[in-house]
Amino acid sequence: MAKEITKRADNYSQWYNDIVKKAGLADNSAVRGCMVIKPLGFGIWENMKAQLDKMFKNTGHVNAYFPLFIPKSFLSKEAKHVEGFAKECAVITHHRLMNNPNGEGVVVDPSSKLEEELIVRPTSETIIWNTYRDWIQSYRDLPLLINQWANVVRWEMRTRPFLRTAEFLWQEGHTAHATKEEAEKEAELIHEVYTRFAEDYMAMPVIKGYKSENERFAGADNTFTIEALMQDGKALQAGTSHFLGQNFAKAFDVKFADSNNKEEYVWATSWGVSTRLVGGMIMTHSDDEGLVIPPRLAPTQVVIVPIPKPKDEIMEVANTISEKLEARGIRVKIDKDEKKRPGFKFAQYEMEGVPVRIGIGMRDLANKVVEVARRDTKEKTSVNLEQIDQHVDDLLVDIQNNLFNRAKKYRDEHITEVDNFEDFKKVIDEKGGFVKAYWDGTIETELKVKELTKATLRCIEVDEPDSEGVCVYSGNPSTKKVLFAKAY
Amino acid sequence: MAKEITKRADNYSQWYNDIVKKAGLADNSAVRGCMVIKPLGFGIWENMKAQLDKMFKNTGHVNAYFPLFIPKSFLSKEAKHVEGFAKECAVITHHRLMNNPNGEGVVVDPSSKLEEELIVRPTSETIIWNTYRDWIQSYRDLPLLINQWANVVRWEMRTRPFLRTAEFLWQEGHTAHATKEEAEKEAELIHEVYTRFAEDYMAMPVIKGYKSENERFAGADNTFTIEALMQDGKALQAGTSHFLGQNFAKAFDVKFADSNNKEEYVWATSWGVSTRLVGGMIMTHSDDEGLVIPPRLAPTQVVIVPIPKPKDEIMEVANTISEKLEARGIRVKIDKDEKKRPGFKFAQYEMEGVPVRIGIGMRDLANKVVEVARRDTKEKTSVNLEQIDQHVDDLLVDIQNNLFNRAKKYRDEHITEVDNFEDFKKVIDEKGGFVKAYWDGTIETELKVKELTKATLRCIEVDEPDSEGVCVYSGNPSTKKVLFAKAY
Repeated sequence: MAKEITKRADNYSQWYNDIVKKAGLADNSAVRGCMVIKPLGFGIWENMKAQLDKMFKNTGHVNAYFPLFIPKSFLSKEAKHVEGFAKECAVITHHRLMNNPNGEGVVVDPSSKLEEELIVRPTSETIIWNTYRDWIQSYRDLPLLINQWANVVRWEMRTRPFLRTAEFLWQEGHTAHATKEEAEKEAELIHEVYTRFAEDYMAMPVIKGYKSENERFAGADNTFTIEALMQDGKALQAGTSHFLGQNFAKAFDVKFADSNNKEEYVWATSWGVSTRLVGGMIMTHSDDEGLVIPPRLAPTQVVIVPIPKPKDEIMEVANTISEKLEARGIRVKIDKDEKKRPGFKFAQYEMEGVPVRIGIGMRDLANKVVEVARRDTKEKTSVNLEQIDQHVDDLLVDIQNNLFNRAKKYRDEHITEVDNFEDFKKVIDEKGGFVKAYWDGTIETELKVKELTKATLRCIEVDEPDSEGVCVYSGNPSTKKVLFAKAY
Repeated sequence: MAKEITKRADNYSQWYNDIVKKAGLADNSAVRGCMVIKPLGFGIWENMKAQLDKMFKNTGHVNAYFPLFIPKSFLSKEAKHVEGFAKECAVITHHRLMNNPNGEGVVVDPSSKLEEELIVRPTSETIIWNTYRDWIQSYRDLPLLINQWANVVRWEMRTRPFLRTAEFLWQEGHTAHATKEEAEKEAELIHEVYTRFAEDYMAMPVIKGYKSENERFAGADNTFTIEALMQDGKALQAGTSHFLGQNFAKAFDVKFADSNNKEEYVWATSWGVSTRLVGGMIMTHSDDEGLVIPPRLAPTQVVIVPIPKPKDEIMEVANTISEKLEARGIRVKIDKDEKKRPGFKFAQYEMEGVPVRIGIGMRDLANKVVEVARRDTKEKTSVNLEQIDQHVDDLLVDIQNNLFNRAKKYRDEHITEVDNFEDFKKVIDEKGGFVKAYWDGTIETELKVKELTKATLRCIEVDEPDSEGVCVYSGNPSTKKVLFAKAY
């Protein structure tokens, strides 16, 4: 059929693009590097958003909204921030168009030049901390636990749908605290929220770690990260939570009076996940037949397909099943299309990753059964009509768990410990995945390893104990094994 | 106390600004014309969004996301659209900053000039119809019923929080249909959805009408509108739904093959409401003590205040009440602050518009009662602890209805029919509100009336029957009474 896609083994990158296109997740747009998120892709993101938003609110955060634009001068107030971050961005210089005096169309009105250029936010620390200065006077105003759901723009040269786009959607939390300890705890709390979300909802196992100084967010004193492993052996940074120290408070002069009326700079965190997670989900679970969506994130969890057509007797049963499932909070769709053949529909729902498909034919009905197919393993079972709702409810849980376990098995098999650089290179080149090795803690080693292998230092695991060893590259003494990998 | 605000009778405009500031709804930002939406303001918008989103989905729509940027040339493809619309906008000309070679800070890198400028979307018809061209080939691809929640930018010269800001948040629906009739029905369906939302959730009565040609959306063949009346007698356009004919399909060459394989241009609608609704809500219900929020939109519907302090015995009762209310789906907050006095808290919650306040004191507890205060009328009642949850549940409904009825009474009293231009001017100048009068249907009259009175033609009511009369301004024959008003 027309929907065939490249096999993963043949060309993983092309396979990914095929899935995005043929499952209807996203489309290219007329604007360089910006994608159109189609209804299925956006439906997945909406489910991610809803769950994350609930988790943020349950941990005491509220939402707000800050301006899309940032005055150019703000970006250079925090020295590291502008160095590491904000150069490739969309710059607004004018605010009016006019009819082209020489002919058709419109041109920029030169008289509308802005006094100071505006930047489309690549991230909002600067505009937010400039605002917090007005909101924070005393310790009574702290903590501020604010999140925003927003679009941001980074002028990326090489883009890929969901993984790296010029505009993307994300949430960015920006919190303000009276003490260093409290801010550090906040960064760790969110690190844990991201971990729970990735593992329990996306069924995507992640490694909890923190970044080396070189890989830190520009302006942070510490960056926590969750690192996932894609099916092609490349790592994906899936979410980061930054302890910002007093860096932004100092850059924007945000002080508070403590309970003794002593003035102090405010402590900060920021943290974010983005539509990149949709890419991570695709590359964790999907297969050569198309998208696989974990049930908890699937816009449609169960599709009911009448075979061969939506006749009255079949539709009656379909409606009854649908009502029973909806009563359990399951998201169901009945395919009422009369023109397409069941085989075409099956392939389509496989491509779109619907976790469970129920087929209802006349012969099944005579036996009071329906056929239930699960997307993850493609197994089919005949299920008695009486038990269908309980069966599907259990099955959705089972699929969710199976996806996680399958991904975790693959990930665990792809963490390879090495103690010499020959093995390091070999694993990175041939097997892929994470390489665990002693590192001497220097940026020189980190950069040299990257240069020689294309592998970057993904993270230092939070749970990794200190131990004695020698650096896999330099041979210098080391007290910590860390994780390297090629990464998206 | 410090929170006092200007009285409405003294200066309505200042009163509005005071409410926005002192209730903590929004703040000015460092970017001209852009506001920061603070947690309370954003919480109200979130509730609006959630309800509207549900209503859109219940009527068959799905969400998607299109790029923030629009190539400049797109804007001039639909002639009326660019004329009426897209001139005052944010123009992106470059994509990189660089360190200032002459000193501190960053400057725009001149080598990063874009070949074609990009516009930050003021509305998305052009980029979306450019995309729909790829999505629509046959009648089987129709209808497309897509909505997006997004930020848009219009470079307004005079801005006011929520009512008119350079950047604002909104939803924009963009649908594509095979027939004119179906597209017209869609525009009317959404008109009705907006009406139900405004009246049933915002408790804001609206007039359902359509715009004169002069006031239509640029590129539309018909614009349906809901028009509300603010407490100062000025009208507020609260939501519009446009029948776009084939205008955008023609501009972007979007054709489909019908069931006879004949090619035809696609029919379109677009429709939107924005954060402006928050402004409308404020000016429909609030009073000289502060914000009044209809219960269905209130982030906190009930606040429980221990008097004078959160002691153990009181907190126990507070928790019990809170649990009972939450079990009924009511959004409750217990004020656990130990530092502020009850009087201060009462004033604060009045300012923030919490619909119901429950005060719990030791003497009340001895009598097994609590004090329940409603924000709309400021009445207080002593309520038995046993009945508290049922009482509050009923009270929230009663407040919602009371707000609607109060606003409707005011609105109805401010629709004044006149049959001569002297009375017209007098009503507009002195009483305010809508003036209903015969209009000769010409743009000349419409503009002249505006010039002389500052009143604009708000709408032609959908339900207004044809009748015979003479135009209130020109004296020419007319078949329709229409509504004029000064407007936001």
